[in-house]
Amino acid sequence: MGKITVVGIGPGSLEDMTPRAKRAIEEAAVVAGYTTYIKLIKDLIGEREVIGTGMMQEIDRCRMAVETAAKGRDTVVVSSGDSGVYGMAGLVLELLLQREASDRPEFGGVIAGISAVNAAASILGAPLMHDFAVISLSDLLTPWELIKKRAKAAAEADFVVALYNPKSKKRVQNIEEIREIFLACRAADTPVGIVNHAAREAESKTISTLENFTKETIDMFSLVIIGNSRTYVKEGYMITPRGYEV
Amino acid sequence: MGKITVVGIGPGSLEDMTPRAKRAIEEAAVVAGYTTYIKLIKDLIGEREVIGTGMMQEIDRCRMAVETAAKGRDTVVVSSGDSGVYGMAGLVLELLLQREASDRPEFGGVIAGISAVNAAASILGAPLMHDFAVISLSDLLTPWELIKKRAKAAAEADFVVALYNPKSKKRVQNIEEIREIFLACRAADTPVGIVNHAAREAESKTISTLENFTKETIDMFSLVIIGNSRTYVKEGYMITPRGYEV
Repeated sequence: MGKITVVGIGPGSLEDMTPRAKRAIEEAAVVAGYTTYIKLIKDLIGEREVIGTGMMQEIDRCRMAVETAAKGRDTVVVSSGDSGVYGMAGLVLELLLQREASDRPEFGGVIAGISAVNAAASILGAPLMHDFAVISLSDLLTPWELIKKRAKAAAEADFVVALYNPKSKKRVQNIEEIREIFLACRAADTPVGIVNHAAREAESKTISTLENFTKETIDMFSLVIIGNSRTYVKEGYMITPRGYEV
Repeated sequence: MGKITVVGIGPGSLEDMTPRAKRAIEEAAVVAGYTTYIKLIKDLIGEREVIGTGMMQEIDRCRMAVETAAKGRDTVVVSSGDSGVYGMAGLVLELLLQREASDRPEFGGVIAGISAVNAAASILGAPLMHDFAVISLSDLLTPWELIKKRAKAAAEADFVVALYNPKSKKRVQNIEEIREIFLACRAADTPVGIVNHAAREAESKTISTLENFTKETIDMFSLVIIGNSRTYVKEGYMITPRGYEV
């Protein structure tokens, strides 16, 4: 039996990948992951075998990875950011534990990575700092009514809120509904930060307001952070005070 | 003028610190941080000057760090985990921007680290995976009523919830009140994971239930993760399904 390990590679650059994650990839014979992420670390992968498929084939890809490890070849499944946040950690564990214990590859564990929300926050300044909620606007696997309920709860309780998967080509209206939900609870000039391609070559950031942020470029590679009632912008930095008197 | 940079060192081991964070510390002349964190990276700090003070002197420590950089010596302020999550990123930015632009050291930015919530989740299996909220139970800088309001909102909207600073010697009752709030919304057997000293030598983990988790060892070095209505435990792993049909 081989070993299967789930690895968060961070935002993409080797500069932001932990030594533990790097070593796990170096020690593996096979690397499985979404092709976009595989490309980000192609120098590290080198001549290793790759199980790379499109975004919509996550289950097949993870199943193949578990099979490959069961056949004796050490395999890592990579996710960008942290594999425990909308990544592959849960799916790999589910598939692994479905197998009979006697037919199960060794589990090398989940190796944490720098999550997109932390990378984006560091680029904007210090927008999290305090209690925050993370919500994905993708309604592929989650009913839209539940997503809206969560957004409303977080908005009312004055959480800083980070939005994953805020918008895609097919899904453009969800972010507008979320904006409405927040406008019902927070000031129109509440700061909203948008980071595209965080910590990658094409990185860009915009600081806008709750009123206007949906007019900015937002897509699959964006992370949106909505400030709480105390968040402010100063000289291009978005800051949520922790509460110190300074 | 020198440069001031805010660095998240991750949970503590060099294995979990990004190359970007490591290099920032290596390039600095002075390292400022809470003494517990300074000790974790003492080999990396080597002969560098240290501004190390106790937990309650954050403002003085950060002010000294900014002063030191203004006097021409490159300085890093380190936080464990990610410095943008209950860390020093916001405070350093606030102090920096209070100074006249002409009297301000260069800002080297915020360097993201592996946050405690991501480290703890990776140790428990895959308990986050879906929408989650992060709440600190320390009422030193935040009114307890607001913390409870946030916990109730997160509980009702079925967020996975990570609790920072769940308990201290002086503050033992808050976690009991939080348990009550969640029990009003979620099943008594909802899985609750507790990780102490995540990714450090003394690391331990416990998986309990909403009913019973406050009987376990919980202190300043614990991170508590309360599952959502779909979280389950299998063979010692805590898993929140993303929603795939597998």
